[in-house]
This record gives sequence, C-alpha cells and structure tokens, in this order.
Amino acid sequence: MRSSRFLFFTLVNQKHSIKSNWIFKCLSSTSLSGPEPAYQNVISGYETFHYADSLKLKYNNATLTNFNVAYETWGKLNSKKNNAVIIFTGLSASSHAKSHEKNQRTGWWERFIGPGLAIDTNHFFVICCNHIGGCYGSTGPSSIDPKTNTHYGSTFPMISVEDFVNAQFLLVKHLGIEKLHASVGASLGGMCSLLSGLLFPNTVSKIVTISSCACPYPTAIALRYLQRKMIMTDPNWNNGDYYGQQTFPKDGMQIAREIATLTYRSGPEWFQRFGNRRFNDLVKLESTFEIERYLHHQGVTFAQKYDPNSLLYISKAMDLFNLSEGYQDLSSALAQIKCPVLVLGAQTDILFPVWQQKQLAEGLIQTGNEHVTFYELNSIYGHDTFLLDINGVSTAIKGFLEIMALSNESDTKVN
Amino acid sequence: MRSSRFLFFTLVNQKHSIKSNWIFKCLSSTSLSGPEPAYQNVISGYETFHYADSLKLKYNNATLTNFNVAYETWGKLNSKKNNAVIIFTGLSASSHAKSHEKNQRTGWWERFIGPGLAIDTNHFFVICCNHIGGCYGSTGPSSIDPKTNTHYGSTFPMISVEDFVNAQFLLVKHLGIEKLHASVGASLGGMCSLLSGLLFPNTVSKIVTISSCACPYPTAIALRYLQRKMIMTDPNWNNGDYYGQQTFPKDGMQIAREIATLTYRSGPEWFQRFGNRRFNDLVKLESTFEIERYLHHQGVTFAQKYDPNSLLYISKAMDLFNLSEGYQDLSSALAQIKCPVLVLGAQTDILFPVWQQKQLAEGLIQTGNEHVTFYELNSIYGHDTFLLDINGVSTAIKGFLEIMALSNESDTKVN
Repeated sequence: MRSSRFLFFTLVNQKHSIKSNWIFKCLSSTSLSGPEPAYQNVISGYETFHYADSLKLKYNNATLTNFNVAYETWGKLNSKKNNAVIIFTGLSASSHAKSHEKNQRTGWWERFIGPGLAIDTNHFFVICCNHIGGCYGSTGPSSIDPKTNTHYGSTFPMISVEDFVNAQFLLVKHLGIEKLHASVGASLGGMCSLLSGLLFPNTVSKIVTISSCACPYPTAIALRYLQRKMIMTDPNWNNGDYYGQQTFPKDGMQIAREIATLTYRSGPEWFQRFGNRRFNDLVKLESTFEIERYLHHQGVTFAQKYDPNSLLYISKAMDLFNLSEGYQDLSSALAQIKCPVLVLGAQTDILFPVWQQKQLAEGLIQTGNEHVTFYELNSIYGHDTFLLDINGVSTAIKGFLEIMALSNESDTKVN
Repeated sequence: MRSSRFLFFTLVNQKHSIKSNWIFKCLSSTSLSGPEPAYQNVISGYETFHYADSLKLKYNNATLTNFNVAYETWGKLNSKKNNAVIIFTGLSASSHAKSHEKNQRTGWWERFIGPGLAIDTNHFFVICCNHIGGCYGSTGPSSIDPKTNTHYGSTFPMISVEDFVNAQFLLVKHLGIEKLHASVGASLGGMCSLLSGLLFPNTVSKIVTISSCACPYPTAIALRYLQRKMIMTDPNWNNGDYYGQQTFPKDGMQIAREIATLTYRSGPEWFQRFGNRRFNDLVKLESTFEIERYLHHQGVTFAQKYDPNSLLYISKAMDLFNLSEGYQDLSSALAQIKCPVLVLGAQTDILFPVWQQKQLAEGLIQTGNEHVTFYELNSIYGHDTFLLDINGVSTAIKGFLEIMALSNESDTKVN
C-alpha cells in the first residue's frame, strides 16, 4: 500500500508539464512573504492503526474493509486513560500537527500543541489522525483495494464526515480510551468535533469547534464544486484512474488550489500583503500582479503534495455535511450536545462565515446548554485564522480545556 | 469583418463537447429561477461608427487603425446638442442597453432607460457603445486585422480603460457633441465614467459611477486572473488563434463564467435562493446541489455568446486600471474632477467592495468637490445590484441627472 503512494508522489515531484509554467519564469520568495501554515507531504513518522474488520459507511450501503488510520500522538495517556484530546484535521492536513522525534518537521498546529501551550502536553495526551480518504497514511483512493489488488481510484466508496469520526473513534477505542477530555477541530475538523458530540455523547467531555458550521452555505459549496470541476475536467484525471500512469491531473489540481487559497484568507489580508503591486512591468495578457504570482506558487506547491482524488472525496464529504440530518431540525440536533462547547469564528472568513458559528453557539444556548463559550475573532486571516491567529485561538482553547478540569470527570494529571 | 464573428458564434452554438455535460443530464428551469440580467448575443440592430484613422493606445506604443465602434441611441439629440448621456458598459455587455425598433429584444438596462425612467429619454439623448476589444460589433480580437486580412486573435493590441473611453469619445465628437450632460457607468463602466471626467473635463458635465473603484483590489484581480487562466490553459485557446477552427476554448470559457457568476452576486442571495437544496439524491462525486447546477447553466449559456479573447483583453484592462496613474496620488487625480459626481455601491459586493466607492466619494469631497452624492445600497444582489436593484439605483440616477438640470449649462428640453 505504502509503495503505491510513494509512486504517486514521486511522479508528482518529477514531472512538470509545460503548461504549469505558462506564466511564471521566475519566482523570488521575498515578495511572497507572509504567514503560511506548515502543511507538508507526510510520508513517515506516523503510527498506523489497522482495522481488519469492516466499517459501515454512511452512503450507498457501502463498507470500508481492512483499512488503515494514520495517527500521531503527543504527551502521555494517564493511568485512568481520561486525559486524551483528539484533534480532527481540516481537508488536506496530515496527522502531523506537531513535530516529534519520529518526524521533526514543523507540524501544521506546531505552536498550539506542547508543554504550556493551548493544548498542553503536560496535561493532555493528544491524538491526531489523517482522515480516511486522505493520502497521508490512512486508506484512501490512492491505496490498494485488497479486493482487487489495484488502486481504489474512483472505486473508493463515497465517504462522509460521519465516517471520518467513526473511523477515528475506532482508534480511540483501540487505545483503550472510554472518555475523551475533548474533541477539537477547525474547518472540516470543526464539523467532526461537533458531530463527535452527537455520535459519541458518552465519550466526548468537551467540544472545541473553530470556523465550522452546522451545514455549509451555498457559496462554500460552489467554491469547492469549482475546485472539483477543475480536477474532474482535467483530461488527466481519467475518471480517477491515474495512479501508475505517466500523468495525473496536475493542472486541474494546481488551479483548484489557487481557488482554494483565495478562499482561505480575506480581502483585507490580500490588500495588506499585496495591494496591487506588480512583479512584471510588461503589459500582456499573462500575469502582472504579485497576488497572481502568489496564487500560482501555492497551486504548484500543493499539487506536489496532495492526491487529487483525496481532495475530491473529502471536499465532497464537506459539502454533504448536515448536522441536522436525522433530526427534526438543527435545534433538535444541537439539543443532543450536553457537554461544554467552545465555538470560535473569524469575522473575515468567507468560506465559513462567522454567522454560521454564531448560529451554532446561539442554537446550543437555546437548547439549554449552559456551558457554551463563543468568540468572534477579528483576525484578518479569514478561514486560516485557526492556523495563524496564535493569540486569539490559543488563549480560548487553553482556557476552555483547562477550566474546572480537575473538578470534571477527566483527570489532567499524568499518572 | 462581420462574417468572421458570425462564423465564431455559429461554431459556438453548434459544437458541444462531451465534457461540457460532465455533470448535468437534465436542467429544469424552475429551480434556477431568480432575477437575471438580460445579456444576449447582439449581432444586429446597432449602428457602426467607423474610424479610418489611428487611435494611439495606452500600452506598448501600439495603435488601433481603421476600427469600428458599435453603438445604439435612444431619445433625441436637441438642437444645442447638449442633452446627451453616454452609458459605458461593464465587461461583457453589448450596446443593447434598451430595446428599440431595430432590436426589440430586452436590453441589459431595459428598465433604467426610457420615458420617465432613471435616464429619461424625454429629456436625454442616450448613447451606449460596445467597448473596443469586445465582440458585439466593435473591433476586437475576433475582427479581421486589415493589415493581415486574418483575425487579430492574440495579435490584438493590449487595450486599457483609457482606450475604451477615448474610442467612445471619438464617436461623441463625430456626433457633434461638445458637451455631454453626463457620463454614466457601472463596474468597468463606472471606471470609464470616472476616467472620462479626467480625460475630458470640458465635455463631461456630470458623472455617475456605480460599483466601481479607483483601482481594483487584489481579490478582484485574483478572481479575474483565475478566469483568464481557465481560458488560457484550455488547449483549444491555442494562443488566441481559434477562429475558423473546429474548436474553441469552450470548457475554459464555461468555467471562467462560473467563477465570474459566483462573484457577481452575494452569499446572502445564494443562501436565500438556493440554500443547500439538492437536485440529485444520488451520492457521488458529481454535482448534487442546486447552486452547482445553476453555475454550470450560467457557464454553458455564456460560452455560447461571448468571445473568450474579448474576455481576456477587457478583463485584463480592468485589472490594470488605476485612476491615480500619472498623478502624485489618488487625491491629486480626484482633484481634477470638478463636476458633480454620483457614487453608488452595494454593501454585498465582493468584487468591488463598498469601501472602494466610499473611498472615491470621500476622496472627491476632500478635494473640495461640493457636488458629491454617495449612497450605500443594502441590496443583496452584490455586484449585480446595478442591474437588479431597480429602486435603489434608478431613483438616485434620476434625481442626480435631473436636479438643477435647467440651471446647468445643459438644456434637457428637446428642441
């Protein structure tokens, strides 16, 4: 299984079509400077939880059999096994939230996890998984289907946010954890952490949901649809069957990531960072402005480290998410969540607008939940606020995870 | 020349690639209902102003020689020839702003022009042109270059907002008009109307600028750049040389328009109109939601009526627009505009955010202009507010064009 993914990434890193350089002859790093999340192509340093049985999936009466969940941990599980915090990732992140001995590269939430930090490894045992459907060690479209001995490709079953949570709670159970101190997540991860409170009310003690929603609004669906369309109309997508081929849908993937990047930040940040500065004084149809060069750079970089099929599957699962499903309405769903909830949102987020987090917080309060904390962050980083606003995000998480911790059922002292 | 454009559109209307139907098998119109501007493929019913001389263009020391400007008029020019109002269009509109005898189809500003309406044809002689670079009768990339006797394609010179205004003012002069009652425009047209006040201060008596700006902000540049990239990376773009071929960059054009459509409205409108309603209960990677189907429909429709090269040229001209160019700063530029100005903007506009119109209005006032009127419209229609908010937009324009009209230099009585 691993080797097939290696093949994919080797291909990605070696091949460069002419078209990918249609605009840019050179790229200096200085003018692209600005805060960037540390996402990377993670191919080692994680543990693998193998589930030999079948997981019943939400859609199409499908099951996923004999699959892996890649995960990493930080801190130490106490003897009562009740100090664990699970972090659910966004769409494209790996389990590598934080550097550690087996992988010393900076993790995507490096500054949020560690001794004395927001998720304090002096207190908590922290778990982070790669979602099933992903391409960083968990079973996904680029994996070998044990039934056919070839890559799943687009025969991978349709997956859901429910499936992400269920698969990761199989690991939680496997680790012998019956009570989690908290489910934490942002973006897709925030959907997961919310949903874990519905699916596993007896396991989850606290929920942190950042820049998420009860159900995506149509603009966000449209923005992800456009990204998927970019990939699926690239002739090299080949209906998802490009593993082991000489080509893959790199052009579609690049521009999909350019669209995504534009939606991850905010107008005010682009304005502050790039204004209408030019990198090219020639007047021609091709690129002129720093913002264009930056987006192109982001597209090229990402296409080298993420599997297009994983993007398709996980992005679609996000669109299909609806917390109210199976309940009379959102209020009935939220009424199932009795534990304390921290809701964070950024005023400049265009992908998960802050009214959606407000809707969650107010909805929870209206159902009688007396432990709801809600902050609107005035960060200019848009949807990426959860990765970049170290003060606004960390302070709230730390306070929320540790307040009354000792009087709770969980015990945050290690041993 | 005309026949070459006919060829292009005939081709567009007849060919349908397999890929264009990648998602949608059927499309019922009912669920796509909502207010839509009346844009259309205008191939007749306009007048043609032919300029046999050369127009010096802004960029690359280029000239445009021997070219046409398509235009339509409504109302009657008075004997003093001082009751004319010129309307500058947005990126993709034709000169057909209003129905008339020669073309009875609904115009794109049908409800704003006419007896008793915002631009009152009982008072005013109204002119609207197709921008040079366009494909609705004015000389553009799809026209035949008289020097080579083949289509310009990407040999068409780079054009600017300045060139659009200069070309249309050649027509104004040709019509014997030395004093315009007003320059009016929205979006790109709003850039043009502003700039006409700088370029022709002795001709323009009043300016209406709607949902425009002094200089595009980086998000808008990025959104147009992505659209251009869609077209230019479509193999069928063929470096702009697709006229008379069996194919043209239809797929790139379709998705470019899908991106554009998403930016022309607002999150609140999409939410109100589509929510997260589904048209398809099957769970698969392909489209599920009404918003996806709607965008696809808009992309397909537009690709049948607009030339991709025209989009590239005019879209790029918008990105390069900067009212301050040639002046010390924006304030120095705005100080040149002494005539009354009406500035309108929509609070939900993501392409030309309302702070940009506020910047214009405040900037003008700070230079001492005592006749600045500024309204923030609370329409949910985003950038398309200028086409759809009949009350908010019409009332302001009517009042502004007619207030103190008789005491002004212009005389709004016909004869």
